[in-house]
Amino acid sequence: MHNRQFNQPMGGNEMPRFGGPGTMMRLPQAASAEGLDACFVGIPMDIGASNRSGTRYGPRQVRAESVMIRPYNMATRAAPFESLQVADVGDIAINTFNLPATVGLIRDGIARILEQDCIPLTIGGDHTLTYPVLQAMAEKHGPVALIHVDAHADINDTMFGEKIAHGTPFRRAYEAGCLKPDLVFQIGLRGTGYTAEDFDWSRDKGFTVVPAEECWHKSLAPLVADIKARIGDHKVYLSFDIDSLDPAYAPGTGTPEIGGLTIVQAIELIRGCRGLNLVGCDLVEVSPPFDTTGTTAITAANLLYEMLCVLPGVKYKDA
Amino acid sequence: MHNRQFNQPMGGNEMPRFGGPGTMMRLPQAASAEGLDACFVGIPMDIGASNRSGTRYGPRQVRAESVMIRPYNMATRAAPFESLQVADVGDIAINTFNLPATVGLIRDGIARILEQDCIPLTIGGDHTLTYPVLQAMAEKHGPVALIHVDAHADINDTMFGEKIAHGTPFRRAYEAGCLKPDLVFQIGLRGTGYTAEDFDWSRDKGFTVVPAEECWHKSLAPLVADIKARIGDHKVYLSFDIDSLDPAYAPGTGTPEIGGLTIVQAIELIRGCRGLNLVGCDLVEVSPPFDTTGTTAITAANLLYEMLCVLPGVKYKDA
Amino acid sequence: MHNRQFNQPMGGNEMPRFGGPGTMMRLPQAASAEGLDACFVGIPMDIGASNRSGTRYGPRQVRAESVMIRPYNMATRAAPFESLQVADVGDIAINTFNLPATVGLIRDGIARILEQDCIPLTIGGDHTLTYPVLQAMAEKHGPVALIHVDAHADINDTMFGEKIAHGTPFRRAYEAGCLKPDLVFQIGLRGTGYTAEDFDWSRDKGFTVVPAEECWHKSLAPLVADIKARIGDHKVYLSFDIDSLDPAYAPGTGTPEIGGLTIVQAIELIRGCRGLNLVGCDLVEVSPPFDTTGTTAITAANLLYEMLCVLPGVKYKDA
Amino acid sequence: MHNRQFNQPMGGNEMPRFGGPGTMMRLPQAASAEGLDACFVGIPMDIGASNRSGTRYGPRQVRAESVMIRPYNMATRAAPFESLQVADVGDIAINTFNLPATVGLIRDGIARILEQDCIPLTIGGDHTLTYPVLQAMAEKHGPVALIHVDAHADINDTMFGEKIAHGTPFRRAYEAGCLKPDLVFQIGLRGTGYTAEDFDWSRDKGFTVVPAEECWHKSLAPLVADIKARIGDHKVYLSFDIDSLDPAYAPGTGTPEIGGLTIVQAIELIRGCRGLNLVGCDLVEVSPPFDTTGTTAITAANLLYEMLCVLPGVKYKDA
Amino acid sequence: MHNRQFNQPMGGNEMPRFGGPGTMMRLPQAASAEGLDACFVGIPMDIGASNRSGTRYGPRQVRAESVMIRPYNMATRAAPFESLQVADVGDIAINTFNLPATVGLIRDGIARILEQDCIPLTIGGDHTLTYPVLQAMAEKHGPVALIHVDAHADINDTMFGEKIAHGTPFRRAYEAGCLKPDLVFQIGLRGTGYTAEDFDWSRDKGFTVVPAEECWHKSLAPLVADIKARIGDHKVYLSFDIDSLDPAYAPGTGTPEIGGLTIVQAIELIRGCRGLNLVGCDLVEVSPPFDTTGTTAITAANLLYEMLCVLPGVKYKDA
Amino acid sequence: MHNRQFNQPMGGNEMPRFGGPGTMMRLPQAASAEGLDACFVGIPMDIGASNRSGTRYGPRQVRAESVMIRPYNMATRAAPFESLQVADVGDIAINTFNLPATVGLIRDGIARILEQDCIPLTIGGDHTLTYPVLQAMAEKHGPVALIHVDAHADINDTMFGEKIAHGTPFRRAYEAGCLKPDLVFQIGLRGTGYTAEDFDWSRDKGFTVVPAEECWHKSLAPLVADIKARIGDHKVYLSFDIDSLDPAYAPGTGTPEIGGLTIVQAIELIRGCRGLNLVGCDLVEVSPPFDTTGTTAITAANLLYEMLCVLPGVKYKDA
Repeated sequence: MHNRQFNQPMGGNEMPRFGGPGTMMRLPQAASAEGLDACFVGIPMDIGASNRSGTRYGPRQVRAESVMIRPYNMATRAAPFESLQVADVGDIAINTFNLPATVGLIRDGIARILEQDCIPLTIGGDHTLTYPVLQAMAEKHGPVALIHVDAHADINDTMFGEKIAHGTPFRRAYEAGCLKPDLVFQIGLRGTGYTAEDFDWSRDKGFTVVPAEECWHKSLAPLVADIKARIGDHKVYLSFDIDSLDPAYAPGTGTPEIGGLTIVQAIELIRGCRGLNLVGCDLVEVSPPFDTTGTTAITAANLLYEMLCVLPGVKYKDA
Repeated sequence: MHNRQFNQPMGGNEMPRFGGPGTMMRLPQAASAEGLDACFVGIPMDIGASNRSGTRYGPRQVRAESVMIRPYNMATRAAPFESLQVADVGDIAINTFNLPATVGLIRDGIARILEQDCIPLTIGGDHTLTYPVLQAMAEKHGPVALIHVDAHADINDTMFGEKIAHGTPFRRAYEAGCLKPDLVFQIGLRGTGYTAEDFDWSRDKGFTVVPAEECWHKSLAPLVADIKARIGDHKVYLSFDIDSLDPAYAPGTGTPEIGGLTIVQAIELIRGCRGLNLVGCDLVEVSPPFDTTGTTAITAANLLYEMLCVLPGVKYKDA
Repeated sequence: MHNRQFNQPMGGNEMPRFGGPGTMMRLPQAASAEGLDACFVGIPMDIGASNRSGTRYGPRQVRAESVMIRPYNMATRAAPFESLQVADVGDIAINTFNLPATVGLIRDGIARILEQDCIPLTIGGDHTLTYPVLQAMAEKHGPVALIHVDAHADINDTMFGEKIAHGTPFRRAYEAGCLKPDLVFQIGLRGTGYTAEDFDWSRDKGFTVVPAEECWHKSLAPLVADIKARIGDHKVYLSFDIDSLDPAYAPGTGTPEIGGLTIVQAIELIRGCRGLNLVGCDLVEVSPPFDTTGTTAITAANLLYEMLCVLPGVKYKDA
Repeated sequence: MHNRQFNQPMGGNEMPRFGGPGTMMRLPQAASAEGLDACFVGIPMDIGASNRSGTRYGPRQVRAESVMIRPYNMATRAAPFESLQVADVGDIAINTFNLPATVGLIRDGIARILEQDCIPLTIGGDHTLTYPVLQAMAEKHGPVALIHVDAHADINDTMFGEKIAHGTPFRRAYEAGCLKPDLVFQIGLRGTGYTAEDFDWSRDKGFTVVPAEECWHKSLAPLVADIKARIGDHKVYLSFDIDSLDPAYAPGTGTPEIGGLTIVQAIELIRGCRGLNLVGCDLVEVSPPFDTTGTTAITAANLLYEMLCVLPGVKYKDA
Repeated sequence: MHNRQFNQPMGGNEMPRFGGPGTMMRLPQAASAEGLDACFVGIPMDIGASNRSGTRYGPRQVRAESVMIRPYNMATRAAPFESLQVADVGDIAINTFNLPATVGLIRDGIARILEQDCIPLTIGGDHTLTYPVLQAMAEKHGPVALIHVDAHADINDTMFGEKIAHGTPFRRAYEAGCLKPDLVFQIGLRGTGYTAEDFDWSRDKGFTVVPAEECWHKSLAPLVADIKARIGDHKVYLSFDIDSLDPAYAPGTGTPEIGGLTIVQAIELIRGCRGLNLVGCDLVEVSPPFDTTGTTAITAANLLYEMLCVLPGVKYKDA
Repeated sequence: MHNRQFNQPMGGNEMPRFGGPGTMMRLPQAASAEGLDACFVGIPMDIGASNRSGTRYGPRQVRAESVMIRPYNMATRAAPFESLQVADVGDIAINTFNLPATVGLIRDGIARILEQDCIPLTIGGDHTLTYPVLQAMAEKHGPVALIHVDAHADINDTMFGEKIAHGTPFRRAYEAGCLKPDLVFQIGLRGTGYTAEDFDWSRDKGFTVVPAEECWHKSLAPLVADIKARIGDHKVYLSFDIDSLDPAYAPGTGTPEIGGLTIVQAIELIRGCRGLNLVGCDLVEVSPPFDTTGTTAITAANLLYEMLCVLPGVKYKDA
């Protein structure tokens, strides 16, 4: 039996999976992060999106499709709910009519979680949100290492003349000193660019760029092992854009690019983070109106669970 | 400003409508009906459905589409949240593998709400649920009057040899003495039957049958006024099957029948119940997998709100 | 109990409605029309369609959505399966790569049904099919009266230079002497035209044109009563294009036009045909790929059943 | 034959309706409004939307579904393409990351059209756009009369603290002196409010409010005749929010409200504007991701065509 | 030309693929299994499903999407319709309101097929059905070997306290002595569990468990070759749950789990069964309401065809 | 900055990606191929399709989903818009009621492009179109080599007795002397056949057949390198049927076959064509009504861009 001292996801023998609360994994809803080791937090926004909108419904739908997830990870034997106090702290109330104001609201909302020494697992929302999340991280922890899994580098200077948008967060975070540039890893980049040099800004700053083409036809376990060795004990943030996956696995997103990662590679990447000093994670860019099969939200929910399983302090059952 | 003593739906200026809790109208979640005047309660089930399934997702989706509803009824000036303490008490945990057991679970769940003198507004779920709800009503209140809006009479003796199914609840409730037969009104019946006499059982028992054809091309305000006059002060239950509406208004249901009520007629029927001694209401048979446009769930959410607005004790603002 | 001498639709207490054969109303499949009074026959085609395709899937989907229909008409008390021997004779094998050849195949296929003195209820398929059906009708019966319910007059001389297409059948049928022009009634016409005189060809030939605008806000029972009086004992064919209905009722069609008939008006039109000497009926232009809610196919299936209920020889139960 | 001096929609005998350019009605694309009497212009935006997003795809989808529209109005005999030089001038490039900047871009874009004495028919986009459109109108014409068809009054002071959003345009336009308040008509309002007095601001300013309930069960021809008499020769703007329609007719929108206008009433309202001194029109709030049947975009395209047919200068063919 | 002595699927040159009967591969419908070597049989049920419902429509939709399948297997050169008499025997009439009764109906229905020495290829329906199928198998053949391809072990003792559900069939079958435990192979298991030891029950009983993770990045031909060697001449049953596939390949199912098998691996597994003494096969858990692209049903239809191609007695053409 | 002498796709900083013209990649629309090095041309047709229709909407939807593509290829560093003058020349007006006539219209339309020494990149439409395209190619260039990527060989003699259909183009092209048979490569073939020898016609004529099974679990870079070596300097045409891809990657097509190519393999095939003397390319069989996720059209748009990147004369930026 599980340890009664920690919150547990509501089980299917207690309430049918199609019923129960609309929280992540049907965990208890918490009014704040107080007393929590980790939390799920939603950031429902799409006003930073340049192509399709709809990620404003990401948090709601990812939670809805998380109902199937049971407490134990059969492959890794992780037992997060025997290890950590976890809850769903709800959504950060963004200002959907004002993108710069929203950045401030997110930074403050995440900072309030970090004040409680709670690790946030953020459910997006468009990728703009990672900039203010990283601001809050840096305020708390100083510059952090970054594992950034994405089809796009998101390092534009501006979009349509604006500094804040879903294509700019990592340039903004770099400029704001939130990152340790030589410990930034961008994995899965591909597609087309405004210049053939679009990814060079990253490389110039010391980031490691792993294009999707370098990932084709192979396991990513060795890649993540290398990255882990390089990061060592540094505090690290994991930002996972669902469009890193090939559209076959994640059609419901705003800016899909063909030739992406497989779901197996995504799981390898996340499971490979076990042992890292993770200070926060996000899963962004799920756009439910374009996710007609529901697969994208299911995938996102499961990847967030896999992130939970590799947080510091999670115990693994003996095999 | 609204009255602070009562729960309020979360407003759009507090949290964007696409965020916030997954409760009905984003009301507070309550652990029980204690202290409540009325409550929303979900019964996620479809194992009583004879044709399409999917109503198990009715409660979740109706709540999801209820986020737009604000506290005041502009047409009637009803102010339910200045009048009653209302919350969402979550779902009754049905046993999805055992229909008779589920009937017992529902009866007990509703009985616990009634014990608190709280009026349940039930979100279905297939129509089987109305039988155990009426059992609980009769235990509390004795036999009740019934306004039953539906495409089908739901008065079969058995379906596939079984006594319990979504086509039998009103025969079962009659047999169990839950109803005042001469105050039962079945409105919107239509379609095809196993015999041309299918609706005669109702008439034989004293029920008033109003086929859909009698509703065509006209307001139903006079009809409901007549019904209200006949019911007078008797305790009355309102069971609204979304398939009473024409499929143009409610495609997402299990057994659609063409030539149904308009949404305007449905609103007239519910608003016309103002002043009745309502002891409970349900809205059943929303099947989200077949509701591709979302309209059915939106409609259901709004009709539940209209039901709330006509409960005893609701105040109306002066015009 | 029903009369055992006639085929009966498979009932829901014999086989769940989501199982059983893929025939219309789960009737027996017949190899030919021999011994039948009436039959359902599919014509799966869309190569005559000028805008959206997809009506090739009309027969399959209309049959799939017909499973809910029980034998007795509750409103009219018609008992078609106590009156007529009815079966589903399957589909006419059209040549999907050759439209003129397909016209010949349809004419021959319908002629084989008529040879058996069986009344065909045709499930389309695009409206091109009505031309060869009317050819076969005229060969059997001589020129016929026509009730044509549609958004479009379908009396173009050519489309893209071709004589055969879904916009030309009634001009072709007129030219081929299949129609009694003064007993042709075109109901529901509307929308836009290549000239403001597009409908005048019909009027010039003696057809009666009833634009949709003349149908707004009222019952069509008086209209059909007038038509019935004019047709008297003449043999009459009923061609019902699902796009006569407003897109709210029938979105899944190839050339939708706003401001159309309501489903109630459609039912009134068909029920009003009781007593006419109907020699055949069709229901055309259901395009399942655009019928995301399933409503269009359900509607078509029910209207075909209503047509069956008004065929000569159908008995009505006493009220 | 049509008059060769004016642009004509590409016909179905020239190019199949499923091919050809992506412009409104497959009209020629124009680089500017120079030489045009009227133009279609898209404003692809949804960042002002408070609930569902997706209206950014409105212009593209409305154009895609406009391909069926032929040049002549069969009901009214309007011949707009024998009367006016009309083209599609493409989209106004809004700044999707900055709502106030977008307001300026729209005002400037519309002003450039008005400089050419060309009447803009705007394809939205969320309703925020009507504020800057009205600014441009007032700069050109002075304060204008307004016919506003909508489920919502859109007269909030702020939304989430912001002055600019899709719920505020008519208060902003009033404050900016763009409107003749006693000639403002708001038709179709309904639903729920933050207070029971939400619509009183409109009435206090002199606007005429016609709630949806006053429209039920009847033709709106008399209403629009009254409005026309009151407006007389004043310059008038028509803003049509697709959510004025009941969701049965227009499910693909951001803030649906049940109990709305029928499509017949909508056509009556627009056709009834014939003879008014219209200086501009818009059709807003079509959200294609939620328009699974395509009906909403088809409806919007046709209503825009009906607006074109009632612009000053349009000739009508003799009946 | 094919051998005229055996039933043939209806060909596309005889009837367009979008027409013809609603049977599997458009084979003849048989009233019973008499005279057949193999048959397709549907079991339309979803009342055993714990999460999403909708598998009640599996048999209908799999048949609908089977129309493209031609008689010869191009890769393996299997010629099943030159080898075996095959037909579609329709659906087993389950009792959708009573799960234990349904188990009995299925056992009896399959037993009637086995009495004719006919091999059933079952189209599900939820996985509950495999328990009564195995009961019938064991009655006929004694305990059988089992190849079970699935994301889940389906070896729970109870679900919500019930012994019969789609998560329990293999524990029930084990307990009933239907299986040779050391010849049970469960392939593709993954995801989350109620305990980290969820799969240990299988291992304790002697089953071979092959988690999905052991299948990643490689051909499964060697695995199935090993399994074949171990099974040898023993009678073996193949149960294929479509959720064994990754959701990219099979989104339309009730309990999807990420990181699953590829379709290539699934084909390898089935083709690798050639030479085994197969006594029956099933393909379960296709849920059409969640299969928006149709891919899941197409995949299921093709996998059932591949199963047919490896039945004992099927001839292969020389290369 | 890009070279101003060539047309450029409209950028996202000039117009939001959800606005702007409906052309491929938002390139300028050209009235003819005059002055162009390469062009995109649509052929909207589905009357040659034997199973699902809907490819008539392929060109429109592929263009709609091409809006995200930026000018530079990040993986290969191709700079097509610094190298070639490219535009969208719109659609060829096919005759949707007459397939043989359509073949002539296509041949003429492509011939007019080739007269301008412009390379056409054709957006289909069903695969019938490749026959007349190859006719025009052979008239201009003599017989050509062919790389044909497809699930099907498309070398039937007739379909339903007709010589022209989407299953016959390569036999017709062979018979018409359009191909160099020993330089024809058919890649990805699979599925079922009318005989086990269906692919032998190809082999007998000297074509190289690479079944899908030979492509499983590996990179196709070596295969395409071999093909390139064999073709050498010969003029070569590339015909890419989207159903060559596994349905996981391209569900929206007319005749899906499981077990197909991955998107990575498709990209490898096309990128591997760099250096070939390509005279034309097509991408066919995208059927938007069955592409509910939009992925198929996005994939097609990107593959067409990759084709553009390997046309003769395209420059590659130094790495």
